[in-house]
Amino acid sequence: MSTAEETAGGEDTPWDEVTPDAARRLLVAAVEAFAERGYHATTTRDIAGRAGMSPAALYIHYKTKEELLHRISRIGHVKALHILQAAADGPGTAAERLADAVRSFVRWHAGRRTTARVVQYELDSLGDEHRAEIFELRRRSDATVRRIINEGVASGEFDVPDVSGTTLAVLSLCIDVARWFNTEGRRTPDEVGALYADLVLRMVGAEAPGAQK
Amino acid sequence: MSTAEETAGGEDTPWDEVTPDAARRLLVAAVEAFAERGYHATTTRDIAGRAGMSPAALYIHYKTKEELLHRISRIGHVKALHILQAAADGPGTAAERLADAVRSFVRWHAGRRTTARVVQYELDSLGDEHRAEIFELRRRSDATVRRIINEGVASGEFDVPDVSGTTLAVLSLCIDVARWFNTEGRRTPDEVGALYADLVLRMVGAEAPGAQK
Repeated sequence: MSTAEETAGGEDTPWDEVTPDAARRLLVAAVEAFAERGYHATTTRDIAGRAGMSPAALYIHYKTKEELLHRISRIGHVKALHILQAAADGPGTAAERLADAVRSFVRWHAGRRTTARVVQYELDSLGDEHRAEIFELRRRSDATVRRIINEGVASGEFDVPDVSGTTLAVLSLCIDVARWFNTEGRRTPDEVGALYADLVLRMVGAEAPGAQK
Repeated sequence: MSTAEETAGGEDTPWDEVTPDAARRLLVAAVEAFAERGYHATTTRDIAGRAGMSPAALYIHYKTKEELLHRISRIGHVKALHILQAAADGPGTAAERLADAVRSFVRWHAGRRTTARVVQYELDSLGDEHRAEIFELRRRSDATVRRIINEGVASGEFDVPDVSGTTLAVLSLCIDVARWFNTEGRRTPDEVGALYADLVLRMVGAEAPGAQK
């Protein structure tokens, strides 16, 4: 299945924060090219061509291929962090907020799976400084989920012997949706989100997980 | 971190079934090259060079780059299937066999993470016939885990509203270990395996999951 078909099949591409329009088109073209062929096999010429622009026009907006990857990665990681923080800071019990975080995070990884794969699998291709910046965003996402779980343990809602390990597993489960999710498959993003919220509440030993569905 | 360092840091490379020695060296070189630069950015010349051989010597053993990827993928998937089948067919309750399957599968994905990443992330680069063969192996792995869960439900050990969805989540959780596992990290493969076995028993609603640790 090509990335173009995935896009037609429902990939969201809300890169609205990227302006001007030419810079946004180049970023979308870069995501598609990196996903199809990998970062190292893609040239800035390929990206410009996909966007219907000249290599010279690309350089007005991005000095290097790595700068494109960094922009994509930062936008993706900031969005992921905001999704988790919105759930963590929302109303409700720890169980309700954890379920909300999982549902939102799963929906994002299913809906933006091409971007998520590029962001997750090409981390090693970032320069040192950019990679350090992205790792700091990842630490904050991890801390946000850990906070909800710690609050649930403190309130007696959850029973979690290993909070940091369970946090890692919850995030890993949601992130891997980007690898296997298929718009032709039998489950919608919302259905996967509901299933995973139930499974995660079981992982943290929440009371009556079935009642959360 | 380079793949060479990962190898030094404990990556198992048991490609013993690949003979003669030259064919095995080329396969190991291909795994490293694909992991570092991606399938599309790697040439058969790169692979031959890493193995200290000429391109002509490579063609004696592998006609195309895709043939190398297919061999790597098939060996990896057959091994994964055997690990799961050994656990499923072992002695013990469904909970004990599911915990054993998860521990073994996690250890494999942590220990063979470079291979696992190539195998998981480059599926789209396989030719149609080869991809169909690999997908059949994946269906059999899925069926093996689903069988253990179904047996646990039938015996009353497990409480699982959505068996196929839970099977998918269990395999996904274990596979994603290959993405994040780091030999420099704070957990050994055995520790991750023990944690994940406990979490999976919670996911299937097994009684007293804490007792399984």
